[in-house]
Amino acid sequence: MYRTHNCGALSLEHLNQKVTLSGWVQKNRNKGFIIWIDLRDRYGITQLVLDEERTPKSIFDSAQGLGREFVIQVQGTVIERESKNPNITTGAIEVLVEDLKILNPSKTPPFTIENETDGGEELRMQYRYLDLRRNPVKANLLFRHQVSMAVRNYLSKDGFIDVETPYLIKSTPEGARDFVVPSRMNEGQFYALPQSPQTFKQLLMVGGLDKYFQIVKCFRDEDLRADRQPEFTQIDCEMAFVEQEDILAQFEGLTRHLLKEIKGIDIADFPRITYDEAIKTYGNDKPDIRFEMKFCELNAVAQGKGFGVFDSQELVVGISVPGAAEMSRKEIDALIDWVKRPQIGAKGLVYVKCNADGSFKSSVDKFFSPEDLSTWATHCQAKAGDLILILSGEIKTTRTQLSALRMEMATRLGLRKPEVFAPLWITDFPLLEWDEESKRFHAMHHPFTAPKPEHLDLLKTDPAAVKANAYDLVLNGNEIGGGSIRIHDQELQSQMFDLLGFTKEEAQAQFGFLMDAFQFGAPPHGGIAFGLDRLVAILGGEETIRDFIAFPKNNSGRDVMIDAPAPLDALQLKELNLKTTSTDKE
Amino acid sequence: MYRTHNCGALSLEHLNQKVTLSGWVQKNRNKGFIIWIDLRDRYGITQLVLDEERTPKSIFDSAQGLGREFVIQVQGTVIERESKNPNITTGAIEVLVEDLKILNPSKTPPFTIENETDGGEELRMQYRYLDLRRNPVKANLLFRHQVSMAVRNYLSKDGFIDVETPYLIKSTPEGARDFVVPSRMNEGQFYALPQSPQTFKQLLMVGGLDKYFQIVKCFRDEDLRADRQPEFTQIDCEMAFVEQEDILAQFEGLTRHLLKEIKGIDIADFPRITYDEAIKTYGNDKPDIRFEMKFCELNAVAQGKGFGVFDSQELVVGISVPGAAEMSRKEIDALIDWVKRPQIGAKGLVYVKCNADGSFKSSVDKFFSPEDLSTWATHCQAKAGDLILILSGEIKTTRTQLSALRMEMATRLGLRKPEVFAPLWITDFPLLEWDEESKRFHAMHHPFTAPKPEHLDLLKTDPAAVKANAYDLVLNGNEIGGGSIRIHDQELQSQMFDLLGFTKEEAQAQFGFLMDAFQFGAPPHGGIAFGLDRLVAILGGEETIRDFIAFPKNNSGRDVMIDAPAPLDALQLKELNLKTTSTDKE
Repeated sequence: MYRTHNCGALSLEHLNQKVTLSGWVQKNRNKGFIIWIDLRDRYGITQLVLDEERTPKSIFDSAQGLGREFVIQVQGTVIERESKNPNITTGAIEVLVEDLKILNPSKTPPFTIENETDGGEELRMQYRYLDLRRNPVKANLLFRHQVSMAVRNYLSKDGFIDVETPYLIKSTPEGARDFVVPSRMNEGQFYALPQSPQTFKQLLMVGGLDKYFQIVKCFRDEDLRADRQPEFTQIDCEMAFVEQEDILAQFEGLTRHLLKEIKGIDIADFPRITYDEAIKTYGNDKPDIRFEMKFCELNAVAQGKGFGVFDSQELVVGISVPGAAEMSRKEIDALIDWVKRPQIGAKGLVYVKCNADGSFKSSVDKFFSPEDLSTWATHCQAKAGDLILILSGEIKTTRTQLSALRMEMATRLGLRKPEVFAPLWITDFPLLEWDEESKRFHAMHHPFTAPKPEHLDLLKTDPAAVKANAYDLVLNGNEIGGGSIRIHDQELQSQMFDLLGFTKEEAQAQFGFLMDAFQFGAPPHGGIAFGLDRLVAILGGEETIRDFIAFPKNNSGRDVMIDAPAPLDALQLKELNLKTTSTDKE
Repeated sequence: MYRTHNCGALSLEHLNQKVTLSGWVQKNRNKGFIIWIDLRDRYGITQLVLDEERTPKSIFDSAQGLGREFVIQVQGTVIERESKNPNITTGAIEVLVEDLKILNPSKTPPFTIENETDGGEELRMQYRYLDLRRNPVKANLLFRHQVSMAVRNYLSKDGFIDVETPYLIKSTPEGARDFVVPSRMNEGQFYALPQSPQTFKQLLMVGGLDKYFQIVKCFRDEDLRADRQPEFTQIDCEMAFVEQEDILAQFEGLTRHLLKEIKGIDIADFPRITYDEAIKTYGNDKPDIRFEMKFCELNAVAQGKGFGVFDSQELVVGISVPGAAEMSRKEIDALIDWVKRPQIGAKGLVYVKCNADGSFKSSVDKFFSPEDLSTWATHCQAKAGDLILILSGEIKTTRTQLSALRMEMATRLGLRKPEVFAPLWITDFPLLEWDEESKRFHAMHHPFTAPKPEHLDLLKTDPAAVKANAYDLVLNGNEIGGGSIRIHDQELQSQMFDLLGFTKEEAQAQFGFLMDAFQFGAPPHGGIAFGLDRLVAILGGEETIRDFIAFPKNNSGRDVMIDAPAPLDALQLKELNLKTTSTDKE
C-alpha cells in the first residue's frame, strides 16, 4: 500500500500514529542538521521532518538529495509542530520520517509549481501535466467536475434522460464548417463530427423520450478567435410538449440551482427582455446587467438645436456613468482617444458632467443651455456626480460603439464584479438575418427554429420581420445558453429550407430523415444548449475558458503537448483512399 | 400548456378532475356510438373515452379520424372505468374527452409500435425514431441512463474527478486503426479520434489528479464483427499511488454497488483466478461461471490404454454435464455433428454416461474398463446422472473447442440464466503475445502495461513468460472491464517500446510527450476501463449491445437513418486540401 493517508488528512487527532504518505516534494529546506520537506498531493501539503538525532543516517542522507517534484513515499510518526501554520488543515502537525523511498526522481521542472508560476502560456501548455499540478488549475478542474455533477443530478431528478447521440454523423454545409472523418469501409465517403446533436435530440423527441439531456463534445472547424476551441462541451437539452415558458422555467430552475449549490447565491426570478429591447437599451444581445448605464436616446431633446454633429445623425444616444463627474479633463481626453481607436471607430464623444452642486459642464456648452443639459440628465437618469457620455451616428454602429464604451467604463469603475451574478433572459430573437455577402437569409439560431405562430403570415411578405420563440440566457455579459421552440411540421420545415436557399434536392439529401420523421407524429418540442466551458469559467469568476479545460488547444487548433495534428503514415492514407494536396506536390 | 399530467399519472385519486393530456394515439377502438382511445407517452397509457351522448359532435367526429401515432391534445374529466385494467397504473380510470386538438397527424408507421413489432432490424434502424417509441427500446435507454448516473455518483462520492479529455488527438499506428480527421488549418496534417483516453488519463495522474473517471466515447476503425460499433462508450478510470489490489477493491466496489442498486442483488467477494488457470479450467479468458462444467484433464488416466485417438494427442480433456446422462443416442450423435462443424472443428467426441445405477456407458467401452471410466468420473467430479464429454487434440485448439461445447451445453440446459450474475476477476495476464504474422511481440493489453516487478529480468531472456499486473473483470462470460498497473518509469517504457519493435525515433515521435512526462515525477498508477454498452446490456439481461444504443450503426458502419457516411462537397474537400481516390478516377 502506498499510503495510509493523503497529504491533506492529518491533524492533531492523529498524534503519535504511524503513517505512510506518498506525494511530490514541493520544498526541501535543508538546515544541515534538520531537513523539512513539504510533501504535496491533490489533497494538500504535509510537512515532513528529518533530523540528525532522530532519523537513521541513510534516510537523512537520502533526503538531502531530494529535488523539487521528486515522488517519494515516507513512513513516520505524526508529531506536533513547534511553529504551527493555521492556513492549512495539516498545519498543526508534522511527520517525523523513519523510512523514505524515492518512487520516481524528477528533472527540474521548466517552471515553478506554485500558484503564481514563472511559466508562460506556451510553456505551460507544452508541459500541461505539470501545469495541472498547480493549485489554481487543479481547482478549476475540480470545480468543473462539481458543476457537471450538479447539472446531471438536477436534470436527472427532474426526469431528464441522458442519451448518448452519435459522434460519427453526416456533414451539412449549413452553418459553421464541419470536421470530417473519412470512411475506410465506404470509399470516397465521410462522416462529420457534430457541431451539436441538434437533429438527434429532435429525433429523440419524435421518438417519445420527452426530456433529454447530454453533456457532450461538439466540434466546429472555424478560424479560431481568442478563447474559442475547435472542440467544446455543451449541456444539450430538449423537451417535448412544451411551450417557451416551460423551457424558460425549467432552465431558470437549473441555473438558479447551480448558483445556489455552487456559489451559495440566491437569485429570484430572472429578468427578461426582448432582443429588440436589449439592442436598444444596451447595444448588444448579451448585456452585462451587473450595473446600470442603460442607453438613453436623446434625438428628441438634442437635435434641432443647431449642433450639426447631432442634427445630421440617425441616433444620438448616451449613458450615465455613476460618480464619474470627477474625471479630469485629461482623463476625458484619453477616453475620447479610446473611442476614436479603430477597434471602436467613433468620430468623437460628447460629455456632460453633472456636478455635485447641480450645475452642468459639457463639451457642447456652446450649443446647449443648462436647461437642455438638465433635460438630458433627466432622460439619462443621471444624478449629481454622474458623467453622461454621448455618441451619435448611424444607428447600428453607434449602438455597438456605445456598448463597448459602456463595458469599458464598467471595467474601469470595477463594476464587473466576478462575485456578483446577474442572469438575464433575452427573448423574441429575429428568425432570420440577412447576409449581405451571400445575398440571402441565414437562420439566426438554426434552420429548425420555429417562427412565432402569429408571424407565420409574415414569412412570405416580410421574412426579416419574423420573430422566433428563440431565447438566450445571458450571465454577466456572456451568452451561456441559447435555444428555441422547434418546427415540428414538415410543411413549415420545408418552407424554411426554401427561405434559406436550399433546393428541394439539397434539403432532402441533408435533412430528409428529419422531414420524414415529422410525418410520423412529431410532437411540439423545444430545447436549449448551454456552453459548459464558458458557464464553468463564469461561475468560477473568470472569463477565459482555456483555464477550465484539461488539455486545451492553442489558437491554431494545435495541441502543443502531444504535437497534434500531425502527418499520417502513407499506409494510413492509402487505406483511406485519400491523397493530400501536399502529397501531390512531392 | 400542453398537459397538466402525463399519460402515466392519473388514478382514482384524480377522480372528477379536469385534466389536459398530450400524447400519441396507440389504439383507436371505434364502436360506432362510443370511441376508446389509448393515449401513450413516455410515462404510460391513459384510456380516453368519447361517446355520442356526452361528447360534442364535432369532437366525436374528429376522434373518428384519428389514426395510429397521431399526436393529440385532449381536455376532459377523470372518471372511473367500468372494466378496470389492473396491469397498468392508470387502469382504474379513463378520461371523458371534452376537447380534442390534433397537434400533428401521422402517416401509418412502417411497423407496429408494440412490444413485439412486425418490423425487421433494417426497417427499425431506418426509422429508429419510431423504434424508440416501443417500450423495450425506451426502457433500455432509461436503464442505460440509470446505470450511467449510478456509476458517476458512486465514483464522485469516492473522490474521483470527471475530467474531459480531448477528442482531436494524434494518430498512433499501434493497435487498432484510428479514425482520422483532416486539419484544414494545418495542411497535410490530421487529428485522430481516440481509441481510448489512455495516455491522457496517465498524464492526469502525472498531473496529480489522483483519481480520474470519465464516461467517454471511443473510436475504432475495425472491420466490424457482429455486435461491434465503430464508436463505443467506455467508463474510463485511473488512480495514482495504487497497487493492483487497490484497483480491484475499488472497482469490485463499484460493480457490487451497481448490482445492488440496479438489480437488487447482493454479491460477496468476487472470485479471482489467474489467466493461466482460466485457460486451463475453462478454455478461455472470460469464462461464464454461472455454472460449473470445469475442464478435467484426463491425459494421466486416459492415455496408454491402447485407444490410439487419445494416445497420440497433446491433451485429453472433458467436462461433466450435469444430469445429461439421459440424452438419447440420437441427441448425442447430433452433438457429435455439432462439434465437427467447421466453426468448432473437432474430429470427434467421446462420451461417458454416468448412469443412475452407478454403471457407465461410453463410446469407448472397447478400450476402457468400467474401473477406468469410474476413475475419469472421479477426475471430472461427475455424479450419477451426469454425462462426460471428452475432446482430444492439440492443447490450444482442443481447449477452444471444449470451451465452445461447454457454452453450448449450458445454453441447451438453460444454465445461462440472465437473472443470475456471476462476476469474476481474471489476473496475471501475459504482458506480451507473439504475433506469427508480423513475427514480433504485441502488447496483450497495451504498451503502457507494467510487467510484474518480479518478472523484470525475464523481459530480456524470455519475454513470452513475463506476466503483467493486468486484470479483466468478467461478468456472465463477457469481459466487461480490463485494466492494468502502468509503467511509470521512462527507462522501462522505452525498453517496452523496443520490445514491441518501435525504433527510438518512432517511439519518440508518437509517445515522446509521455516519456518526457515520466521524467518529471510520475507517480505509480494504474486503472481500468469498462465497456459501458456491454455492461448495460448484460445488466439488462441481454447480450446484444445495439439495443442499448440510441442510434447504432450497422455492420458496415453506416447510420441507415441519416444515411452516413456520405460524399463531401467538392468545396469541402478543396478546403481540406484533400483528394479521394474516387475523385481521381472521375
